[in-house]
Amino acid sequence: MLKRIVSIFLIALLAPVAAFAADTAQVTSPDGKLSVSVMTENGRLYYAVARDGKSVLDPSQLGFRLSEQKGFEKGLEITATDTSTFDETWEQPWGERHFVRNHYNQLSVAVAEVDGAKRHLNVVFRVYDDGIGFRYDVPADGGFGAIGITDEITEFAFAEEATVWWIPARWWNRYEYIYNETRLHQVPLAHTPITMRRDDGLHISIHEAALTNYSGMSLLKKHGTTFEADLAPGPDGIKVQLDGAFVTPWRTLQITESATGLLDSNLILNLNEPNKLGDVSWVKPGKYVGIWWGMHLAVETWGSGPKHGATTANTKRYIDFAAKNGFDGVLVEGWNEGWDGDWFNNGDVFNFTKPYPDYNLTELGKYARDRGVRIVGHHETSGSVTNYENQMADSFELLAKNGVAQVKTGYVAHGGDIKRLDENGNAIFEWHDGQFMSEHHKRVLIEAAKHKIAINSHEPIKDTGLRRTYPNWIAREGARGQEYNAWGSPGNPPSHTAVLPYTRMLSGPMDFTPGIFDLLFEEEQPNDRVRTTLAKQLSLYVVLYSPIQMAADLPENYEARMDAFQFIRDVPTDWETSIALNGEIGDFVTFARKERGGDDWFLGSLTNEEGRTLEVSLDFLDAGRSYTAEIYRDGDDADWDTNPYAMVIEKKTVTAADKMALRLAPGGGMAVRFTSAN
Amino acid sequence: MLKRIVSIFLIALLAPVAAFAADTAQVTSPDGKLSVSVMTENGRLYYAVARDGKSVLDPSQLGFRLSEQKGFEKGLEITATDTSTFDETWEQPWGERHFVRNHYNQLSVAVAEVDGAKRHLNVVFRVYDDGIGFRYDVPADGGFGAIGITDEITEFAFAEEATVWWIPARWWNRYEYIYNETRLHQVPLAHTPITMRRDDGLHISIHEAALTNYSGMSLLKKHGTTFEADLAPGPDGIKVQLDGAFVTPWRTLQITESATGLLDSNLILNLNEPNKLGDVSWVKPGKYVGIWWGMHLAVETWGSGPKHGATTANTKRYIDFAAKNGFDGVLVEGWNEGWDGDWFNNGDVFNFTKPYPDYNLTELGKYARDRGVRIVGHHETSGSVTNYENQMADSFELLAKNGVAQVKTGYVAHGGDIKRLDENGNAIFEWHDGQFMSEHHKRVLIEAAKHKIAINSHEPIKDTGLRRTYPNWIAREGARGQEYNAWGSPGNPPSHTAVLPYTRMLSGPMDFTPGIFDLLFEEEQPNDRVRTTLAKQLSLYVVLYSPIQMAADLPENYEARMDAFQFIRDVPTDWETSIALNGEIGDFVTFARKERGGDDWFLGSLTNEEGRTLEVSLDFLDAGRSYTAEIYRDGDDADWDTNPYAMVIEKKTVTAADKMALRLAPGGGMAVRFTSAN
Repeated sequence: MLKRIVSIFLIALLAPVAAFAADTAQVTSPDGKLSVSVMTENGRLYYAVARDGKSVLDPSQLGFRLSEQKGFEKGLEITATDTSTFDETWEQPWGERHFVRNHYNQLSVAVAEVDGAKRHLNVVFRVYDDGIGFRYDVPADGGFGAIGITDEITEFAFAEEATVWWIPARWWNRYEYIYNETRLHQVPLAHTPITMRRDDGLHISIHEAALTNYSGMSLLKKHGTTFEADLAPGPDGIKVQLDGAFVTPWRTLQITESATGLLDSNLILNLNEPNKLGDVSWVKPGKYVGIWWGMHLAVETWGSGPKHGATTANTKRYIDFAAKNGFDGVLVEGWNEGWDGDWFNNGDVFNFTKPYPDYNLTELGKYARDRGVRIVGHHETSGSVTNYENQMADSFELLAKNGVAQVKTGYVAHGGDIKRLDENGNAIFEWHDGQFMSEHHKRVLIEAAKHKIAINSHEPIKDTGLRRTYPNWIAREGARGQEYNAWGSPGNPPSHTAVLPYTRMLSGPMDFTPGIFDLLFEEEQPNDRVRTTLAKQLSLYVVLYSPIQMAADLPENYEARMDAFQFIRDVPTDWETSIALNGEIGDFVTFARKERGGDDWFLGSLTNEEGRTLEVSLDFLDAGRSYTAEIYRDGDDADWDTNPYAMVIEKKTVTAADKMALRLAPGGGMAVRFTSAN
Repeated sequence: MLKRIVSIFLIALLAPVAAFAADTAQVTSPDGKLSVSVMTENGRLYYAVARDGKSVLDPSQLGFRLSEQKGFEKGLEITATDTSTFDETWEQPWGERHFVRNHYNQLSVAVAEVDGAKRHLNVVFRVYDDGIGFRYDVPADGGFGAIGITDEITEFAFAEEATVWWIPARWWNRYEYIYNETRLHQVPLAHTPITMRRDDGLHISIHEAALTNYSGMSLLKKHGTTFEADLAPGPDGIKVQLDGAFVTPWRTLQITESATGLLDSNLILNLNEPNKLGDVSWVKPGKYVGIWWGMHLAVETWGSGPKHGATTANTKRYIDFAAKNGFDGVLVEGWNEGWDGDWFNNGDVFNFTKPYPDYNLTELGKYARDRGVRIVGHHETSGSVTNYENQMADSFELLAKNGVAQVKTGYVAHGGDIKRLDENGNAIFEWHDGQFMSEHHKRVLIEAAKHKIAINSHEPIKDTGLRRTYPNWIAREGARGQEYNAWGSPGNPPSHTAVLPYTRMLSGPMDFTPGIFDLLFEEEQPNDRVRTTLAKQLSLYVVLYSPIQMAADLPENYEARMDAFQFIRDVPTDWETSIALNGEIGDFVTFARKERGGDDWFLGSLTNEEGRTLEVSLDFLDAGRSYTAEIYRDGDDADWDTNPYAMVIEKKTVTAADKMALRLAPGGGMAVRFTSAN
């Protein structure tokens, strides 16, 4: 199945790069459209990116500043270059696509100081048809030794203005913001992925791949449309501390003509290392329900007392519901002791091996197993990571013994307030996306893997494709999810889910927790609501990819709408392939996905505040087959604001030769299951 | 008039500072309430601040990181300390108070590396009854040589949570934001002054004093309520470049029990150097009108054409109006060539010595002079500072020859987009509050002083009290001013002017341009309006201190309301003294000010969206005198939203023994002139 071709790469015709004639190395994408140039000028190191001869990034500086030694930024020269090509197709154990082609041309540039210590390193560029990745590669003999990075001088001098969708970095609420839509020069400091559309229609998304033992990168404005890398600091302000050989994460630019081109890109996954965990057949995609939304609606509590959600009886009710409807898991939050203290300000109160007295883990593990269901574990750390690391092995063991194969972790501390203890027991504070946390999450994954447990981390470090390397990192939150609709007045605007696919979702699966059916919950939270139609809630299962998907509402709300619920029962969470059919950032998006291990296709489409009709060709369907399309669409008079429940469920017979009109109400969506009839 | 006392200071009783027993130096304020401790712990340098034995700042680190040498942060020891006291009263040539007492206790701490290069510097603390200032003082023999500062490691570890009013730093719109009101931990990166009120009622405002040849400081969250200095970067990312001896700006904490305590503080002025310009009797406070609001209402243009505002005829109309009503100046924007090109994106189009053909500068200079009025010059640079520096001497000479004594400058470029040219003519981009701009403004002031011209800079570097040193820096903008009400839908909320006194105005005079009388301008900009009552517009002349105040509206709008206009005609702009009578941040504020060189007192009071009645004692009035109070107050049914023009003008006879009820409508205000009858 896998093929690998490594060959000498010939430099193709490149776009001219003004004023950087001397000492320049170049590389293009396999299709020849994208080009990267690397050069020095006055002893400083730059790279530039062009597409079809038009600048994407003007010359942008590279280098480092260091706490205890001179910065690596001046007096540099290129001492060697090396180009190669690579073409491989690899298999995902689970994912949005079964097989992924990894095809790039590579340029490795050796850079050294002309004088003095002659420290040296390599900058490696991989150029794909749909973008580039580059990273610094510091060898053991590079002359750096133990270093504290105070600044990674990596510029992004965007050649043109653009409309950009972004959320702020270094703010208190982690990654959980409604996206801003502004012009590029108006962006101050933004998390990645940050996605822009130039006025000429070119789409660019900046992110990073394989963030491990390093700090997360944000983009900080320098001037005009020129930005620079800004790394999350460690507790003493130094961004990254390393000793000996290291590579940085890949800095990635996905560059495509259309918005959907971004959605079809595998660049970030491709830049990650292959699976390091060996046999991961125990990592199972699937659907789950759970004791969760009731807490957000404030009808149940995490802590003990008369409204405690995680009771044995209540959990059995969810297990019964899951078994009856084909769900794989039942998440139980609030099962362990700690929730009755001031857990938000002191996560050390959490005990990860001690269930509440009214929660019988052993009994429930057996009860679930007998019905073909698994309990999904929950570890809310409240950002007290030393307390968690001290207990996680014991807890994973306890949970695994009771049939748990997935744990949802949580780090709901404010930005900058992750707490760890040093060897003397003093509290030290970290950022969610700092170097320490990049290593913490790895420690959790590796420990969990020993117990065949997959991790779904909430308030996580951002996703950078490490699920390829650690396939038990099955999903994350890391964006403003469904729960904000319960209490985040005014909740998420209808455009939110039309922005996420082009931004947050480019980084990897998100546990958004779709499927709210009682959209107004007028008794529980009368001032809040979900700004969506019912059909749009169904579309999210196809649009927002995750190998685990929750049916997030209360069982009774599903039982009241079994017709609509049927789609959630039917939709898989593991895919043979995925195709973005149409879309524009913040406006609308349509995905077609084919289930893995079956013949069914699924389509999901959603829109922002504006109603619209999209015509799609069904040519993604297998040729020569006839399909029954089970369509869940907005009623003709549906509207998220005035008539959110109006939905039509209808069946049609279609083939790949047909077209289908997707009529989306304002704030609406559509979900289709195509079942092969032959 | 001036007295100076320097004496040995005895260390008073200090609040205990836990865990920092060894190697500690301490100093208290003259009244003994505020204390500062400086100490090392594991070779790192810290300071801490307490008030009445309660921590204000927990131990907070001090130091630097440098681009080409090891940071000055570890392996440090205190080698010497020196304390002294200082008490002086000095005279302002113009100002909100004629005489200012500068009374502090000083602690100077010599800090050196234990090993290696043994670099050393001093940190100097001045402790006042109402706050502290401290700065780094690097001597020529400190062993640093030429340095690039990559981080000033100055922490502010606030001991308690607080409600805080702040605007973001490093954003595109300079300092021009509506203030955020959040909890302290929610602040990401904020400009100074940033002002907070702890839950125990203590008020703290952080800013800096004497920002010269250095970059402006913002506050960046580290964790919880701990912040650090974040300096505006230079074009290569290095924050500050210096060679040899230097002092940093003073980092200031104004610390008072009440909100009004902040308003009465002179700490920032006191920390600046005395006047360096010698005789500045040519710097004249005063009031002006001008060709300006018509452009914001889009009924006139800066550029040439049929709607050109800066014509000879139109300027004569304004001169006549100014002369008739006792104004000193007529501002004329759009007088010089350049406004017809793409000036926003290329300020190099501006010619500062070439008037438009329809603007006869010579004729107007004479016309004004004959009527006892002066033209106020205008230099919009659009952030192209090299273009401006190349022409400013010639332009100042031309303007001075025509009677101009004040020039309004403008730097309306986006944040980070100030353009200068290097010696090769290449464009280099700077921040408005970077080191380069701190020096640019000084060059402008010194050049202007040669021509006896005062400067009112818009889109400036923030005010840090340099008007004491350069008294021709007569005012600045540097906040969201009146013009946002013309086109900034939805404009400034009523609370904006109730926040400014406690934040932006703590730094110095602001040219807010009050006095809009046509509050709805339904014909010109029907979608916008000023969210204020008419009486509140009058109150701004007393509340928002500036030695120059504009009557910003069109003459015809004043002629339609001569009754209200009388207050603007009467109110002075230079004060013998100023007293904050009451106030809470974002809610309301009342000032009483006594005119300099006269016996009249003036009172201004304003409120946010909420109507309220405030009772004030008139005991600020001179004892034994009887005053006629001319009161301009909101009508009983006035409301900024529904009835903004309702105003009552009435007279009362009062003495210092009386009280006065200030009845403020929602979004309203009140202005009073107290004229001595004996």
